[in-house]
Amino acid sequence: MDEVTISRAITEGYLKDLLDSMELEVAIVGAGPSGMTAGYYLANNGVKAAIFERKLSAGGGMWGGGMMFNRIVVQAEGKGILDELDIRATEYQEGYYLADAVEATSTLCSQAVKAGTKVFNLLSVEDVMIREDDRITGLVLNWSAVSLANLHVDPLAIRARLVIDATGHDAEVCRIVARKTGAKLVISGEKSMWAEVGEKEIVENTKEVCPGLLVAGMAANAVCGSPRMGPIFGGMLLSGKKAAELALDLVRKT
Amino acid sequence: MDEVTISRAITEGYLKDLLDSMELEVAIVGAGPSGMTAGYYLANNGVKAAIFERKLSAGGGMWGGGMMFNRIVVQAEGKGILDELDIRATEYQEGYYLADAVEATSTLCSQAVKAGTKVFNLLSVEDVMIREDDRITGLVLNWSAVSLANLHVDPLAIRARLVIDATGHDAEVCRIVARKTGAKLVISGEKSMWAEVGEKEIVENTKEVCPGLLVAGMAANAVCGSPRMGPIFGGMLLSGKKAAELALDLVRKT
Amino acid sequence: MDEVTISRAITEGYLKDLLDSMELEVAIVGAGPSGMTAGYYLANNGVKAAIFERKLSAGGGMWGGGMMFNRIVVQAEGKGILDELDIRATEYQEGYYLADAVEATSTLCSQAVKAGTKVFNLLSVEDVMIREDDRITGLVLNWSAVSLANLHVDPLAIRARLVIDATGHDAEVCRIVARKTGAKLVISGEKSMWAEVGEKEIVENTKEVCPGLLVAGMAANAVCGSPRMGPIFGGMLLSGKKAAELALDLVRKT
Amino acid sequence: MDEVTISRAITEGYLKDLLDSMELEVAIVGAGPSGMTAGYYLANNGVKAAIFERKLSAGGGMWGGGMMFNRIVVQAEGKGILDELDIRATEYQEGYYLADAVEATSTLCSQAVKAGTKVFNLLSVEDVMIREDDRITGLVLNWSAVSLANLHVDPLAIRARLVIDATGHDAEVCRIVARKTGAKLVISGEKSMWAEVGEKEIVENTKEVCPGLLVAGMAANAVCGSPRMGPIFGGMLLSGKKAAELALDLVRKT
Amino acid sequence: MDEVTISRAITEGYLKDLLDSMELEVAIVGAGPSGMTAGYYLANNGVKAAIFERKLSAGGGMWGGGMMFNRIVVQAEGKGILDELDIRATEYQEGYYLADAVEATSTLCSQAVKAGTKVFNLLSVEDVMIREDDRITGLVLNWSAVSLANLHVDPLAIRARLVIDATGHDAEVCRIVARKTGAKLVISGEKSMWAEVGEKEIVENTKEVCPGLLVAGMAANAVCGSPRMGPIFGGMLLSGKKAAELALDLVRKT
Amino acid sequence: MDEVTISRAITEGYLKDLLDSMELEVAIVGAGPSGMTAGYYLANNGVKAAIFERKLSAGGGMWGGGMMFNRIVVQAEGKGILDELDIRATEYQEGYYLADAVEATSTLCSQAVKAGTKVFNLLSVEDVMIREDDRITGLVLNWSAVSLANLHVDPLAIRARLVIDATGHDAEVCRIVARKTGAKLVISGEKSMWAEVGEKEIVENTKEVCPGLLVAGMAANAVCGSPRMGPIFGGMLLSGKKAAELALDLVRKT
Amino acid sequence: MDEVTISRAITEGYLKDLLDSMELEVAIVGAGPSGMTAGYYLANNGVKAAIFERKLSAGGGMWGGGMMFNRIVVQAEGKGILDELDIRATEYQEGYYLADAVEATSTLCSQAVKAGTKVFNLLSVEDVMIREDDRITGLVLNWSAVSLANLHVDPLAIRARLVIDATGHDAEVCRIVARKTGAKLVISGEKSMWAEVGEKEIVENTKEVCPGLLVAGMAANAVCGSPRMGPIFGGMLLSGKKAAELALDLVRKT
Amino acid sequence: MDEVTISRAITEGYLKDLLDSMELEVAIVGAGPSGMTAGYYLANNGVKAAIFERKLSAGGGMWGGGMMFNRIVVQAEGKGILDELDIRATEYQEGYYLADAVEATSTLCSQAVKAGTKVFNLLSVEDVMIREDDRITGLVLNWSAVSLANLHVDPLAIRARLVIDATGHDAEVCRIVARKTGAKLVISGEKSMWAEVGEKEIVENTKEVCPGLLVAGMAANAVCGSPRMGPIFGGMLLSGKKAAELALDLVRKT
Repeated sequence: MDEVTISRAITEGYLKDLLDSMELEVAIVGAGPSGMTAGYYLANNGVKAAIFERKLSAGGGMWGGGMMFNRIVVQAEGKGILDELDIRATEYQEGYYLADAVEATSTLCSQAVKAGTKVFNLLSVEDVMIREDDRITGLVLNWSAVSLANLHVDPLAIRARLVIDATGHDAEVCRIVARKTGAKLVISGEKSMWAEVGEKEIVENTKEVCPGLLVAGMAANAVCGSPRMGPIFGGMLLSGKKAAELALDLVRKT
Repeated sequence: MDEVTISRAITEGYLKDLLDSMELEVAIVGAGPSGMTAGYYLANNGVKAAIFERKLSAGGGMWGGGMMFNRIVVQAEGKGILDELDIRATEYQEGYYLADAVEATSTLCSQAVKAGTKVFNLLSVEDVMIREDDRITGLVLNWSAVSLANLHVDPLAIRARLVIDATGHDAEVCRIVARKTGAKLVISGEKSMWAEVGEKEIVENTKEVCPGLLVAGMAANAVCGSPRMGPIFGGMLLSGKKAAELALDLVRKT
Repeated sequence: MDEVTISRAITEGYLKDLLDSMELEVAIVGAGPSGMTAGYYLANNGVKAAIFERKLSAGGGMWGGGMMFNRIVVQAEGKGILDELDIRATEYQEGYYLADAVEATSTLCSQAVKAGTKVFNLLSVEDVMIREDDRITGLVLNWSAVSLANLHVDPLAIRARLVIDATGHDAEVCRIVARKTGAKLVISGEKSMWAEVGEKEIVENTKEVCPGLLVAGMAANAVCGSPRMGPIFGGMLLSGKKAAELALDLVRKT
Repeated sequence: MDEVTISRAITEGYLKDLLDSMELEVAIVGAGPSGMTAGYYLANNGVKAAIFERKLSAGGGMWGGGMMFNRIVVQAEGKGILDELDIRATEYQEGYYLADAVEATSTLCSQAVKAGTKVFNLLSVEDVMIREDDRITGLVLNWSAVSLANLHVDPLAIRARLVIDATGHDAEVCRIVARKTGAKLVISGEKSMWAEVGEKEIVENTKEVCPGLLVAGMAANAVCGSPRMGPIFGGMLLSGKKAAELALDLVRKT
Repeated sequence: MDEVTISRAITEGYLKDLLDSMELEVAIVGAGPSGMTAGYYLANNGVKAAIFERKLSAGGGMWGGGMMFNRIVVQAEGKGILDELDIRATEYQEGYYLADAVEATSTLCSQAVKAGTKVFNLLSVEDVMIREDDRITGLVLNWSAVSLANLHVDPLAIRARLVIDATGHDAEVCRIVARKTGAKLVISGEKSMWAEVGEKEIVENTKEVCPGLLVAGMAANAVCGSPRMGPIFGGMLLSGKKAAELALDLVRKT
Repeated sequence: MDEVTISRAITEGYLKDLLDSMELEVAIVGAGPSGMTAGYYLANNGVKAAIFERKLSAGGGMWGGGMMFNRIVVQAEGKGILDELDIRATEYQEGYYLADAVEATSTLCSQAVKAGTKVFNLLSVEDVMIREDDRITGLVLNWSAVSLANLHVDPLAIRARLVIDATGHDAEVCRIVARKTGAKLVISGEKSMWAEVGEKEIVENTKEVCPGLLVAGMAANAVCGSPRMGPIFGGMLLSGKKAAELALDLVRKT
Repeated sequence: MDEVTISRAITEGYLKDLLDSMELEVAIVGAGPSGMTAGYYLANNGVKAAIFERKLSAGGGMWGGGMMFNRIVVQAEGKGILDELDIRATEYQEGYYLADAVEATSTLCSQAVKAGTKVFNLLSVEDVMIREDDRITGLVLNWSAVSLANLHVDPLAIRARLVIDATGHDAEVCRIVARKTGAKLVISGEKSMWAEVGEKEIVENTKEVCPGLLVAGMAANAVCGSPRMGPIFGGMLLSGKKAAELALDLVRKT
Repeated sequence: MDEVTISRAITEGYLKDLLDSMELEVAIVGAGPSGMTAGYYLANNGVKAAIFERKLSAGGGMWGGGMMFNRIVVQAEGKGILDELDIRATEYQEGYYLADAVEATSTLCSQAVKAGTKVFNLLSVEDVMIREDDRITGLVLNWSAVSLANLHVDPLAIRARLVIDATGHDAEVCRIVARKTGAKLVISGEKSMWAEVGEKEIVENTKEVCPGLLVAGMAANAVCGSPRMGPIFGGMLLSGKKAAELALDLVRKT
């Protein structure tokens, strides 16, 4: 067992995938519930997709349930996705399914990767690439550690036919696009909690907000000024699935 | 869809499990590779076990591969566990298998929870419970957020017939026991890297270090002063499996 | 004496109250002088009320008197409330009563809880619940430690027929409502110190500012742009009492 | 209503007490459960005592219950003190009484002050005064804000016939005395949790550790190397009461 | 030599002066060069004045000269004030006098105090007192350590017939007044460096900016949008002197 | 008035003095009361001395009196030095003189500089120069801002026939010498407060502790393990004066 | 070898250059690629120029390549400058030359200094000097350590006929000028990445933006709202060269 | 010009060199003066060497001269190396040569890289590789940003026949080896400044301190307890050259 062989294996294995992912069909930003669901369905449909996640681990706030009580609730409409992903849930009351947050998060991530989506963790989106028709054509990436460590190092760029902003209520990619390109993208911020309405609107809000950029999950509600929902995840999963379907259509058209 | 029903479902669901886990057969500290492997095998054998993890997410440093290149290497001896857990790996060179770090981490976690191990994330071990024969009889736990937020709040205690320290190279539980109980537990710290030796000794070092306390994974090498190994995970998985076997024996005896 | 029994007693005791408080008549935010006075009078009148306090201890800045000289002054109009609460005060000069800040704070808290108000400390209000008529119908809560520790964890929600914002000069709940719901709620900020005027206006400013939301104490002056008063507490106590009276009316009507 | 009159009332009121407290019979350090209980019984017996507390609020960690679940447990032996202080508690199981942490903390503080003990919050003990027979003769105090703000400002001194260290598991006064005077004061640190033993020994450990210095509460167990107890407060209250009795004897003798 | 007598002497001595200074003719904020010069001339003319300084030491940035080279330059017009204060300066070139920054700062402070101005260091201005004609009638003060230590403690108030803002380029008092009272006080901020113009305009800018509030030194240029001057102090001293003359007039009129 | 001429005047003025001070008879470290008193008497006796002070301002903790009450006490023995320095003090009680802390600090600094001592503020001592007989022959200095800003920049060195450590209770120069040279210099740390003894011993402790290094003020008591004194400054002034006398003898001998 | 001689040599050597550089023809702010290229060509043409750099080292983000992979790319147009500076580059693909980032950065710096440009590192620009026709006539400088260490120390000023802002995408000098002088200088911020366009426009954007102030490198694109380019440096070098040519013309005209 | 081609060029260029450098003849840690000199001479002699530097830029403290006056001094013995590297220096006094710190640092770096040494900046040494005869056989490396950002990510390993510790006065590699391997390596720390002795001993101290590990530059004096020298660099350069010569011999032997 030789340490240098191990180092070489890891370096070569990663770099091959990184270089290969410099030309993507779909680049998903954020490995939270909607981003990973989108990745799962895209890869299942043969689309070349990768997820770029700022943190060390995937899953975002989903690990923590509500108030650190690590359980999540999914309503009837989302139960089918849980079943497809093989995540267990028990009925708490009619229409409310209770799942273990750790099981749900890790299983969703495991399924997305096994379906074929690459997850590049520890990478942050600094900017996007843009062309004359205001079309987003890729991401400008850097190690998250660079800005956490307050270093001044330039980023690199990758190309994608479509970008999905699944960064949660900050809607980070949309904010960058609005600030940098002057695109008419009004980000209203999510409204106060109203689970009923928020869950309904999140699927409607999942759409292409400017050429080349889709928005999914809480980012969709934040961009459209819809209410937040609390620790209920059905809408998030359905939004991720819808984003995958939209992306599939758009990618096949181009 | 009612927010208060969601809140009740989550609170009741969590509390039921927390109260139930206040009497365990095996309490595992640390949801890294060896702790989750131990949890998987214990639960598979019908042992009542739970993992207590300080961070929001499970997996520890395993998500990051080596130098943020998110791939890991497993040698031939550990390949069987990968197969059993349904984690894919390709042969890089004879005896060296290369796996995706994100797939490996999330799948291991998913499998451990599905096997029946509870994972309580966001909880830190502040102390242990001890009785007159210097036997460790449980853990003293607090929300990690309490100390991160610099608050002064008392912990709670849970009982366990056995504790497994799988906290990595800090060997946190062992350090607490050495400092607080005066138990003859010399923690040498891990030695410089020598993958060959480290991988071999980690399995030998997996053992009961004082009544009621087992040590597994990098914590085992740290306690025994064996070398570290780098981003190769076979020994970690084998150590977790051995800890489960030892715990099974000890629990059945008592 | 068994540690696990102690842990169970505490966990079950707290959770029972927390679940019970998920449906309230009045939710008070902030355990400062006006919030605790409101809680005292509401509970005395049989209203189901609870106070949510961000800090570990109740009392806010009242413990520190003026410039850390821990005495407070109450004018003649507020002396009656001190008497009712059994807080001692000596006449310094005609119309000015001097009390010990530590006695005043701890006794007010003790009396409010004994009257029947639950105090949930270490909980922060992240958001409110809202319905189509812009009515505030509850609070979205999280452990304060979550944001202090910079963790990303979702909140839970509780329902209340009325919310009282007693968060002091920041008027935190009002600010959230203004930012998130677009309610016509202009927060002017408190004006420069003028004790005479501030003390008079604080009682007038104690009122319902939007459907379901009352404001009391310094938050009332901050919302209405009235002057601040310095370490004189009569107006604060009178404002808390008036908020309780208004809430009583509104709760009984609905 | 005149602001300057208010300022004068507060300044004169505080300073009178501060100057008066520069010669005490008993100086208690720390306004946690044992310190406040000691203050209550001393003042009830006509002893001139004051409590010096580093924080803005009294009560320490007692507000937070266990793991932020704000309930505390008191065993049968301590129930009598709760009754005397008028703190409500319900029997959870034979011998285990459950009380509201906020009620217990605020009521204990209220009762101690009403009994006649002054509480000076926001003051830290920097050092002690010492005389040739290694007798502690007073405290060297500074505003806590001075060190929190990293300022370099000299302290002032007050005289006391006896000092009670009720600073919790840090045993701060004892540590200062051990470091500065060379007194033979071995501070073992509290041992791992064992409620049964810790509760029993805390009362035995409450004693004079060097001429002029008593130790009470968790500081007593820390100095003597006894186990910690978790969120059970009977021993703390009994230790505070015993410290008061010992101090009463010693003060009357001198 | 008795420590408690020392403590009493200091406490009584300070408190007497603090209580006495709660009614002032002129309250100066900031113990920099212009504030101390104003204090010197006011006290010399028998006006009851005090300086409130946020820092531990008086002198502000004057100790550091330019770029930490601790020398300062004074032009011919300011040389007379140096002479009056007994600060030595040597002619560097015609019209440019070079002085030691440490000598200049300490001597100016020494002379101002000896002339009869009280300096209260470690106190910050949190707010002003205001009356119906928008007249500033005093200052709202707190220990600087309170906000440095992030504590929540109320301030106290003192009355003054006139306030001089000598807080340097931040013009802190003016900013508070503009934000809190709505007074028409436009603060332009100091312009880029032009010593010639800045030195000339600083004296013109020294004036009453709203009823009861004068501005002096760099604060005058910041309020009026005049240029900054660099490490040349003539204008600062002349501005302080002029502020004293204006204050003298105004105080004598009322 | 030309900015560049001002910059040149300051730069040249400072540099001339800095270069001139690279060869000193006595280098004093610390511009607190004892260091400035030593500087005053040395310069008055024609010795070429300079004070190196880490902070922006001279005076150290002397500005803050006791507990931020800015008054200081001097006993009868030190009254003569106050008189010589022209610092006013009033008799509080027989043998206790009360002075204004701001007047005392600024006047002492002003007098030391006027007597001819250079004060270089903002400079820290990183190390000393040493020769084969373990004689201290100078100081190794750097801008304090360099370490505050966490920069890695080398220091410069100056030569002195004698060094006086007047750095207060940290005894910084002595600590450097003990750590770096192996000189037999035991630093006991100051003992608990006992004004009577501390004031007496501080003068005895003022002495040469190794070839070329004298110690004065609180540093003397810290090195010798004598008690601290609180905010009484007679001993400090007398110690500074004695250090000057010893230095004068030693410098004249060599 | 004498330490004091070394200290004198360094102090005198630096100060001579600093004093000499107080009157410059061209002052360049920022020692990144465009600033150093401008310095190289200016000095080569006999212009008296100096570079002021905030950091300890020259080179800025150029050392880090892209994503910490320390290589840079230069396109065909910039290859000539690399050749002139003797920086090696290999053709990666037609029109793309790959160079070592460490070699490129250090060699460019070495060449600029050898050509005769002084580099003053560790100095920050706080402000500019301005005259009545809104002409920038110099820089107001301070040690970077002063603001990093949070000290309050005045700056010094130097005169220059022209200033070049080469501070990168922050365009720091332009921002100061816009904020302080009211000059009509709209800073749009750099747009999203589009290498093709960014590289073309950076040379066009290199120009005089207000009397006495040129802008070069990324600062030029930030001021003009052109796209950013990523880790390709041809445009940066060409911009630096053009800035030198423009400056040469302007300096010779005046 | 295509961003993705640029990204590919940089990634492939870097990775090729990184993989190639996983087997080295000599691994130098630290790109300060001695490390870069060693690299220059090794590469000039055809040895495969690389420098690993923790910071973004090479050069360490050498850029800052003494006290931020960016000049350095080299004595006669080191002048030859300056000449060989083409670094200009002027004679200040007999035997003392004065050079520009920026020119010296950048030119030394430029020459080392051009000679053929790879510089990997932004990489930290976490550990070494070791074999049974206590021989150091390589380095365990991680991105510096990982620990700066407080991430938990595993390192990678590279092999080298010899390691040179040129990390300055911390002697980081030696400390790791002493702590981790138990090698008999006593690190005395550098002694107080004595330029004459320090410069002489640094060359003697440059040697193999345990199998496979050489020490050079200030690290050599720190390991051997020799004096520090101040901002004189002759010894550093000579030490780097000697380390190269020793390494050459050792590499050729094995």
